[in-house]
Amino acid sequence: MTQSIVALLYGPDQPGIVAKLAGWIHERGGNVLHADQHLDRQENVFFQRVEWDPIQPCDLSEEANSFKEMASMELGMNVRMALSGDCPKVAIMVSTAGHCFHDLILRVRAGEWDAEFAGVISNHSILEEASRSYGLPFLHCPVSSANKPEVEEMQLDWIRKQGVELVVLARYMQILSKEFLEKVGCPVINIHHSFLPSFAGAKPYHQAYRRGVKLIGATAHYVTEDLDEGPIIGQDVAQVSHRHGPSDLIEKGRDLEKIVLASAVRRHLQNRVLVYRNKTVVFD
Amino acid sequence: MTQSIVALLYGPDQPGIVAKLAGWIHERGGNVLHADQHLDRQENVFFQRVEWDPIQPCDLSEEANSFKEMASMELGMNVRMALSGDCPKVAIMVSTAGHCFHDLILRVRAGEWDAEFAGVISNHSILEEASRSYGLPFLHCPVSSANKPEVEEMQLDWIRKQGVELVVLARYMQILSKEFLEKVGCPVINIHHSFLPSFAGAKPYHQAYRRGVKLIGATAHYVTEDLDEGPIIGQDVAQVSHRHGPSDLIEKGRDLEKIVLASAVRRHLQNRVLVYRNKTVVFD
Amino acid sequence: MTQSIVALLYGPDQPGIVAKLAGWIHERGGNVLHADQHLDRQENVFFQRVEWDPIQPCDLSEEANSFKEMASMELGMNVRMALSGDCPKVAIMVSTAGHCFHDLILRVRAGEWDAEFAGVISNHSILEEASRSYGLPFLHCPVSSANKPEVEEMQLDWIRKQGVELVVLARYMQILSKEFLEKVGCPVINIHHSFLPSFAGAKPYHQAYRRGVKLIGATAHYVTEDLDEGPIIGQDVAQVSHRHGPSDLIEKGRDLEKIVLASAVRRHLQNRVLVYRNKTVVFD
Amino acid sequence: MTQSIVALLYGPDQPGIVAKLAGWIHERGGNVLHADQHLDRQENVFFQRVEWDPIQPCDLSEEANSFKEMASMELGMNVRMALSGDCPKVAIMVSTAGHCFHDLILRVRAGEWDAEFAGVISNHSILEEASRSYGLPFLHCPVSSANKPEVEEMQLDWIRKQGVELVVLARYMQILSKEFLEKVGCPVINIHHSFLPSFAGAKPYHQAYRRGVKLIGATAHYVTEDLDEGPIIGQDVAQVSHRHGPSDLIEKGRDLEKIVLASAVRRHLQNRVLVYRNKTVVFD
Repeated sequence: MTQSIVALLYGPDQPGIVAKLAGWIHERGGNVLHADQHLDRQENVFFQRVEWDPIQPCDLSEEANSFKEMASMELGMNVRMALSGDCPKVAIMVSTAGHCFHDLILRVRAGEWDAEFAGVISNHSILEEASRSYGLPFLHCPVSSANKPEVEEMQLDWIRKQGVELVVLARYMQILSKEFLEKVGCPVINIHHSFLPSFAGAKPYHQAYRRGVKLIGATAHYVTEDLDEGPIIGQDVAQVSHRHGPSDLIEKGRDLEKIVLASAVRRHLQNRVLVYRNKTVVFD
Repeated sequence: MTQSIVALLYGPDQPGIVAKLAGWIHERGGNVLHADQHLDRQENVFFQRVEWDPIQPCDLSEEANSFKEMASMELGMNVRMALSGDCPKVAIMVSTAGHCFHDLILRVRAGEWDAEFAGVISNHSILEEASRSYGLPFLHCPVSSANKPEVEEMQLDWIRKQGVELVVLARYMQILSKEFLEKVGCPVINIHHSFLPSFAGAKPYHQAYRRGVKLIGATAHYVTEDLDEGPIIGQDVAQVSHRHGPSDLIEKGRDLEKIVLASAVRRHLQNRVLVYRNKTVVFD
Repeated sequence: MTQSIVALLYGPDQPGIVAKLAGWIHERGGNVLHADQHLDRQENVFFQRVEWDPIQPCDLSEEANSFKEMASMELGMNVRMALSGDCPKVAIMVSTAGHCFHDLILRVRAGEWDAEFAGVISNHSILEEASRSYGLPFLHCPVSSANKPEVEEMQLDWIRKQGVELVVLARYMQILSKEFLEKVGCPVINIHHSFLPSFAGAKPYHQAYRRGVKLIGATAHYVTEDLDEGPIIGQDVAQVSHRHGPSDLIEKGRDLEKIVLASAVRRHLQNRVLVYRNKTVVFD
Repeated sequence: MTQSIVALLYGPDQPGIVAKLAGWIHERGGNVLHADQHLDRQENVFFQRVEWDPIQPCDLSEEANSFKEMASMELGMNVRMALSGDCPKVAIMVSTAGHCFHDLILRVRAGEWDAEFAGVISNHSILEEASRSYGLPFLHCPVSSANKPEVEEMQLDWIRKQGVELVVLARYMQILSKEFLEKVGCPVINIHHSFLPSFAGAKPYHQAYRRGVKLIGATAHYVTEDLDEGPIIGQDVAQVSHRHGPSDLIEKGRDLEKIVLASAVRRHLQNRVLVYRNKTVVFD
């Protein structure tokens, strides 16, 4: 396997950025494997994902730091770096529905993504046995309005101790507090079971049934303190008809939720997603 | 071509409805060509579309009336009948964007549907020449908040005189008043350029751009006095990305709008749509 | 849960079939829950799926037999019956790729379908541990051209002893012999990793890559002795681009294969599929 | 409107290409608006589409030539250039079905693409009046096996005189000879009414019906002397069921054909398509 470095960056557009970044890599003997850029002309912001093989024997991490320094100092860019071989630690938060939970874990076990599950946090115990059979620690945290602050503290504690770099809400039916989100120290991805902004909030399939829509959807997004309002990473829909009652929508929706959440987590883990002004730039 | 009769009906469910309706047709020597039914178990309402060939030489219209009488009297059904050879008169209302307008007219001219365009009503004159080149009367009605009531009266007058049986809003950028809808005497189908209930109201593509959605949509629905809240006939979506600005969404959306509106009008003209409690049953 | 009976039937069309069948059910006090029919006008063949609740206390199985006798004797129909509460035994045959295997088993465990897995047959041992952790018997049958006849005998033996009613080839990379298919005594569903009839045979993703297609597909079909030529139950596709090499197609294809196979198995288990002249009628 | 230059290029990969190309543009004061590249690692071929605004007052055409010289001489690249304001001349060849014909012409008239129709060539006269009403010359060339060589000469003559830069076969039901394709001097895009490589050749919807597929497709491709074997630009599919006879497939297919052909022509006209080894790289 080749070694490679990925840089994700954005900042004020200016002439010559592409030449400058590609030139820096070339001068140090590196070879660009992929590069993709986007220019938001309304905001005049430049976005890029560039992946290169340094070719010369070098410390990948030092090389990445040098790039980051150059791009931030000389070009005013906001920069995130990743190295081949990185294997970020992921925590899953889940309630009772296991479809996304199994799907994510089986993908990692099949080698689809470079990631390692740190463990499972749940307000129910229903997936405890399944977690253990996958060899994953299971943190059982029943939540009530009374104990929510302490429970969240315990969850944060565990997340920090494990060195978690991504939290995935795989149908976790609790709202995370503003405090939790401020302290968690890593991105949190959620799957919402509707085509946002339609049917935000509770029981979206029942809302969809009542409105008589002909497509149902699922949306994966980064969690912010505004419920179901965070930057959207991906969405998909499926056709439904008058024949589908609420329980059919729920069943049909499970397949959508799995696919949309998995696709968003994969893009995040492959460092393809930049967030800017509550929207995402996704380099596919 | 075979002669045939279509019945669309709904009403309280009861044991033996299917046998009763099919038996009636069979006893009079008819042969069922298609039959499709739906049972809403929450509401306990039965819906059916049945199409049959009476086979025996008969007056189609009388036969249809006898069926209607039986189904409404003996089964308490709400019934709508249609005969092969019907060619309903359709009026198009349009503003400046011509894509749905051309699409609908070319489909009818190509023989896709049995329908006849009675003419075009527009608050702009931009499509006047195109209408005339298609041989269609063009009613030019500039609308302002001051003259809206009189203009609507004129439109209604024209619609009634022409014997219009369906009005299609093919990107008509005016809101029809409650009075207009009460008096128009036939269904009105609209194409809304978003995936309802997301982005109802004005400038949906700009709303979609701001929210950063990854799919845009279009929705065809019957118009009711609640703006963009009427029964949905069909919806579809297309993928978009961060690369698409508002004008790209508008361009991409045009193809969606054409397909979704045409599909809804076709289903309506083929007597496949039943409305019940602000939702539709669409027999495909 | 209501008790219900499903009949799937086809045979020569004749006037009054719908009335006759619905009348029989109604006279015995039953209530039709769903009924869907199709008329193949080229072949003059009538197809129907009808589901009813007998309402009167009765032996479901006897009632089903009476219906079958009437439909076959009096109408010349080919009939298959199913009863609510049926829980057919399913065998999975698999090689090394586990994605469809896990997907099917997790759906049944989550209660999506009424079915029971009798066990797993594989020419590799790689999924043995996973099978056991699901509590499923695992029959390990390495196949070579030399031992194929004996191995197939052993497999047939096991299938018969278990009373298997459906065999699912969940990416089983061996061709079943004509003799196996004649003796197996139940339907066999396969997932082929292309959009048939494109790219039948070996390594379809490599074939697709070489041809430069812009969509890849997956096809679920009943297995017949003509390789990849059996009646198609369902198909789906996903977009690809020049960026996708063969290994990307393989990864992207896995999600398609899972969805398409699961959807075909569900329809089969819900008694929605009729086979006629190497094609299927699928009542959704 | 901004002035801009587009370069489409491919050739042997080597370290520093991206830096070299971007550096050249930057040094002359230009600003990159979009750049997208692809590396075929199996063939070691580099592909790029780059669009820039020269900013400095200059002769666009000279600037484009200088770039082309540099890229071909110094990097061994195969290069195609295009300038903002280009409005290529397009000829449509069509037989009797008018849906793609109207669709393409209405898009250009609505300002969707920068292109000018030079005229219409047809082996039937059915679209003559429509062509004239759009103000387009109509070349009526009935073709028989006897007169084919002379007719093709006449067509080529007309194409050359008009300075046609793209020929679109909008459901032209004649096979162009190898000689025609060698002499035509510009790309030829065809719409085939199936999901290639399935159902190449005649009557694909009838083939699809007989095979019992559950999706039908359409494929836009560049025409080569191998029938339906040329490089694929785009494909799409639509769901069908047992209810669809051949004529339903034909009707449903028309919408697919329009969308897929229009999308391929748009990408070609926007200089987004590179052909390499009978495949395309499409920069979206």
